[in-house]
Amino acid sequence: MTVLQHDLYGGIQAELDASAAIFRDELRSDLPFVNELCEYVERYHGKRVRPAVLLLAGQAAGRLTPAHAVLAAVVEMVHIATLVHDDVLDDADTRRHLPTVCRLSGNEAAVLLGDVLFSHAYHLCSGLESQFAARQIGRTAVALCEGELLQVSNRGRFDLSEATYLEIILRKTASLIATSCLLGAHYAGADEGTVRRLATFGESLGIAFQIRDDLLDITGDAAEVGKTLGRDVEKGKLTLPLIHHLRAVDARERAATEALLSDTGDDRDARIVERLRETDSIAFAHDRVRVHVGTAIAQLDALPPSPARDTLRVMADFVASRTF
Amino acid sequence: MTVLQHDLYGGIQAELDASAAIFRDELRSDLPFVNELCEYVERYHGKRVRPAVLLLAGQAAGRLTPAHAVLAAVVEMVHIATLVHDDVLDDADTRRHLPTVCRLSGNEAAVLLGDVLFSHAYHLCSGLESQFAARQIGRTAVALCEGELLQVSNRGRFDLSEATYLEIILRKTASLIATSCLLGAHYAGADEGTVRRLATFGESLGIAFQIRDDLLDITGDAAEVGKTLGRDVEKGKLTLPLIHHLRAVDARERAATEALLSDTGDDRDARIVERLRETDSIAFAHDRVRVHVGTAIAQLDALPPSPARDTLRVMADFVASRTF
Repeated sequence: MTVLQHDLYGGIQAELDASAAIFRDELRSDLPFVNELCEYVERYHGKRVRPAVLLLAGQAAGRLTPAHAVLAAVVEMVHIATLVHDDVLDDADTRRHLPTVCRLSGNEAAVLLGDVLFSHAYHLCSGLESQFAARQIGRTAVALCEGELLQVSNRGRFDLSEATYLEIILRKTASLIATSCLLGAHYAGADEGTVRRLATFGESLGIAFQIRDDLLDITGDAAEVGKTLGRDVEKGKLTLPLIHHLRAVDARERAATEALLSDTGDDRDARIVERLRETDSIAFAHDRVRVHVGTAIAQLDALPPSPARDTLRVMADFVASRTF
Repeated sequence: MTVLQHDLYGGIQAELDASAAIFRDELRSDLPFVNELCEYVERYHGKRVRPAVLLLAGQAAGRLTPAHAVLAAVVEMVHIATLVHDDVLDDADTRRHLPTVCRLSGNEAAVLLGDVLFSHAYHLCSGLESQFAARQIGRTAVALCEGELLQVSNRGRFDLSEATYLEIILRKTASLIATSCLLGAHYAGADEGTVRRLATFGESLGIAFQIRDDLLDITGDAAEVGKTLGRDVEKGKLTLPLIHHLRAVDARERAATEALLSDTGDDRDARIVERLRETDSIAFAHDRVRVHVGTAIAQLDALPPSPARDTLRVMADFVASRTF
């Protein structure tokens, strides 16, 4: 647990613990091999952003119910399922300072484990009284995968537009954070306007979070971030700084950057960062993070004051500055 | 459509058509790349065993409702999701006489498309009035993946027992066919005994179906079966004939067969079949198919006579003899 969590999550600690227990119980299998894999991915819990915003949105919008702890486990399970599959797609070595499942147990086990996690999330969700959450989770999981597919289908395209990039991260990242906030508020009995505002908060937070995550892939410290960096360029995924850079330069410079992107030299990443700095493209992306964080925070202003609302604001501020 | 379907599915053709339309509508996306992939896998519909038994079990146990066509689409979607992921795991070239998605669009697109199909299945399912089906589908999808994981974790083990083999196919194949029958009967308003009998029918049919499928991987005609054969041995998956054979021979012969399994020669498959015939292991597996088909048919005897019941019996008989 990071300092951030310790300071911030005090008001929802009991519910976070309850949701972690539900998560663990749901994944218990009579097959030892499956149990081992599930226990392993429990260590993938990181900042628990999705469960946390779900619970905080619930508190900020009304009262938490027993359904909230279940839903917090569901959104975390969907998220971890996508991480396990992402690591297969990205051929990644480490995640949260640990070897990835695909590296440890092979791609086959990782694909299936992701499926197991998705299936358990739905199973858990459909144990609730109403179908509302299950329907939202199904819809959101489709969006998540579509975002990834859109990214895969644009791999290696140097003409990727900022609009398409935004569409990708809206689906693959912002959708689940938005749905977490929406479910938190809905199950707390909030009115439609409040539910919508909190969903928009989650969506803007998610967009900011992903732009920042993509920035860290370029400028981060692998030891601090805890996962393999430089993968986006390696896998031909253009992210915001590069999109800005390629738009800013003339044809000759563009050709030089594109050649560098296909390079495999040891100093490629450092040389890319240098070129990005020349066009202020890293500053541009940072600025976009701040804009989306601003949109997120503006949603909170319409809510009544509460410690949960304050915590959501601190989380949004943190996204703008995080280095891990 | 095969001759089998044309003859057999007359009584449920309208509902099968309705479920195919629901399937198509659910998968529609605003992303052209996703649409193309979804349209492609529609061609993976084969004998539609799961939708068919769901609808027939419903007719045999009571009356079909609008929920049945939705559920028929759901079980087919879950099935096709597992096929798409299976082809990634098995590195297969063809499926239903077509290139697999992983071959055509890459492993990444195939992993994500499988996830899209799973997610749509749950989304569709949670649009129904009660959570009953969604909960069953979640539970069954977990079982499916666990069966595959159990298989992966036993890969290359020459001491795989018949009991573990049965556990694998019970989960990875029989569970969804059993759930299809269970849902068909439940939503037709059948009493608990009838629901249980039809679920047992589906489970036995599923076990028989998978043993037969594994036999076809060894003895089938690739052109007729429509997919790459000999993959089980290649991927180190022991199936029933080999399990029987390795149990029947002495240590020296066992070593010879095991050496052959690790061989990569062109005539390996033919030489394996020859050795299996020497120990009557293919006949043994055929016999097991007949036993499970017998169990399936025995369940039908307790149901009132109906054309649907007769069709389920013909389907069971067909499993015992199918060559594709």
